[in-house]
Amino acid sequence: MSGCKKLAEAVSLQEHKERIDRILSHPGAENAEGFLWWGNHRIFYLAGFAFVPTERPIALIIDKKGSTLLFVPRLELEHARAYAGVDDVISYPEYPDYEHPMIHLSRIMKDKGIKRNFFGDGDGYGKVMGYKGPRISELTEACFHPFDDIIEKMMQVKSPHEIELIRESARWACHVHRYLQEYTKIGLTENEVEMKAAWQAQQDLINEYQGKYRALSWGGNGPGAGYRGQVGQHSALPHSLNINAVFKAGDTLVTGASCPMFGYWSELERTMFIKNADESQTRYFSHMLELQNLAIDACRPGKTCSSVDRKVREYFDFHSLKPFWRHHTGHNIGIRYHEGPFLDIGDETVMEPGMLFTVEPGIYVEGLGGFRHSDTILVTEGEPEFLTSYPRDIESLILPG
Amino acid sequence: MSGCKKLAEAVSLQEHKERIDRILSHPGAENAEGFLWWGNHRIFYLAGFAFVPTERPIALIIDKKGSTLLFVPRLELEHARAYAGVDDVISYPEYPDYEHPMIHLSRIMKDKGIKRNFFGDGDGYGKVMGYKGPRISELTEACFHPFDDIIEKMMQVKSPHEIELIRESARWACHVHRYLQEYTKIGLTENEVEMKAAWQAQQDLINEYQGKYRALSWGGNGPGAGYRGQVGQHSALPHSLNINAVFKAGDTLVTGASCPMFGYWSELERTMFIKNADESQTRYFSHMLELQNLAIDACRPGKTCSSVDRKVREYFDFHSLKPFWRHHTGHNIGIRYHEGPFLDIGDETVMEPGMLFTVEPGIYVEGLGGFRHSDTILVTEGEPEFLTSYPRDIESLILPG
Repeated sequence: MSGCKKLAEAVSLQEHKERIDRILSHPGAENAEGFLWWGNHRIFYLAGFAFVPTERPIALIIDKKGSTLLFVPRLELEHARAYAGVDDVISYPEYPDYEHPMIHLSRIMKDKGIKRNFFGDGDGYGKVMGYKGPRISELTEACFHPFDDIIEKMMQVKSPHEIELIRESARWACHVHRYLQEYTKIGLTENEVEMKAAWQAQQDLINEYQGKYRALSWGGNGPGAGYRGQVGQHSALPHSLNINAVFKAGDTLVTGASCPMFGYWSELERTMFIKNADESQTRYFSHMLELQNLAIDACRPGKTCSSVDRKVREYFDFHSLKPFWRHHTGHNIGIRYHEGPFLDIGDETVMEPGMLFTVEPGIYVEGLGGFRHSDTILVTEGEPEFLTSYPRDIESLILPG
Repeated sequence: MSGCKKLAEAVSLQEHKERIDRILSHPGAENAEGFLWWGNHRIFYLAGFAFVPTERPIALIIDKKGSTLLFVPRLELEHARAYAGVDDVISYPEYPDYEHPMIHLSRIMKDKGIKRNFFGDGDGYGKVMGYKGPRISELTEACFHPFDDIIEKMMQVKSPHEIELIRESARWACHVHRYLQEYTKIGLTENEVEMKAAWQAQQDLINEYQGKYRALSWGGNGPGAGYRGQVGQHSALPHSLNINAVFKAGDTLVTGASCPMFGYWSELERTMFIKNADESQTRYFSHMLELQNLAIDACRPGKTCSSVDRKVREYFDFHSLKPFWRHHTGHNIGIRYHEGPFLDIGDETVMEPGMLFTVEPGIYVEGLGGFRHSDTILVTEGEPEFLTSYPRDIESLILPG
């Protein structure tokens, strides 16, 4: 990677504060005495704090005025003080400990004047790693009102900073994918090729960022690319897991690449062939490319998500490809990798500039393989914009072997 | 890795069937018309099917007689047919699609005679990646009865096969940790060392298993070891995330290593020093080792989990180490990495042979570093048994630099 590009940075405290202000000014929010958020993605979105979720609950408490308090186990106290964009951090000793953390938390809520109701994403912590505990509404007289859809909606349209992070993630996805393509050879296994590509790309990223890179995410610490078992006939399983396949001539390959960038993800996937693609492989590849082209072109503001998927399904029908259809056209992408809205015939969300989609219609032929490219596409006022920039034509994707 | 050791294999269909039989014969189960399981770990535990959880719900339906049906999106149909240990698989087209998958599922339940009630781990699918949907009890006249504690209990005591998988996981954790230790050098970054260690260990595993290895898990495809940011002063944060630290002389390091083995995990963690450990580092290390020794020795059948943690806390008090205490002594480990019961002062579970614990009391000194070993320990009729077998003494853990 070269050039004097400005390095990416984490979303600012100011932007986190604006997100909280938007929640507080949302219709209905005026009735809340306070807000409670439990989900790790929610807490990251509102306070920029990335942590390992365990059996020990963590909650973000926001009062009516927007003042923020993070409730953490003792284990996370210094970590939260150093990295969470909140006004205050309070810790409980442990879970389960002498006193259940929820009892501690209900006292804090009382102290903060949250007595009759609270809004948020749950009435208690989820069943993470064996955690058990009472609902908050069982311990206090406060009623819980779900108020999570507003965050879900906010997350659907990315800010300029978020788009830049995803664009940078996409740049590194392409970078690691080039290594994956280069290193894949007949006789090697998917694991060794993936490891080598990731290692090389991480080195490059380290060199470029000189200590200023942070993944701030779950599921990865840097650029990665791989096959997830989609090698040869097994590529016909769209969501296979790694099977440590051995590459052989004639294999159809479906790849995946990404890179967490200060909490944000992109997606790049390519269909490739080893040594050669026969007539059937070439035919299905061409259909797939046609499908992806028409779907990307349909990502326009003012149109519904369903309209994109409808065009894709019509193509499947028209070309008698229906037996090879397996899934919708794509999904929004951000902190959680997959997120709504979906490019799905049942999703009537109207597309807006700032929405990002993976566009990835796939064709899956048992006994032969899977055919799917995925690009990360930004909806703009005008033409849809590719954030992933990687060759899509078959000539570029046939490996020498 | 050498020797003519028998390679590990996935848990058998027979064992999965026995797990289901235990649920069906559990007191209270006779009142159920049927069972519904949504959690990916639950479905893996009962049917051996490892899949990528997305916005598309997957449910395992078990009828009164133990007959099993997996409800999956079209995307997963062939994958489930090939890999899930169930009697039947039914697919819905997509989520959200024209018809919400929950409507489809409620029809299936009716067909299977599940009309008045169902037992299981939830009244609908969770909020995964933006999924939204109605509860089953809103769509049918069947009431939901939580019946998840029985599985939680079953998972706490491992079968001989499960123990063998965790033992094998521990062997590879030690193997990759040896590389981590060997490759860590002053001036290198945590990412490059981790990548190299994992790559090398995965190669070894591939060579030994010759295509017969499966991770069948989330969060990893083979042996891995790393620092998660716990390098130098930053090691005082017990659950840091990767910060791509640069190693320097005098650093205190806290490592972590594991390997998914057909769905099962072990845990190995070590405190190491680069080039030398000064007087304070040596002192805290010695305390930590004492703590770990007394905690491991306390893992005896018939004793409570709390009794182990109590001994640890008493040691902290007696030696005036309380300001450096951050977390409980350990956790059970299996499919979910962390799982209950916990070696925690508040957990009154009585230990039994077949329970496995990470034993990992930690001392964290701001400005200096963190001190924690973790070993995976099996509770037996007699002495606690180490599944992780890796040097614990300070001499073995000071790196040349």
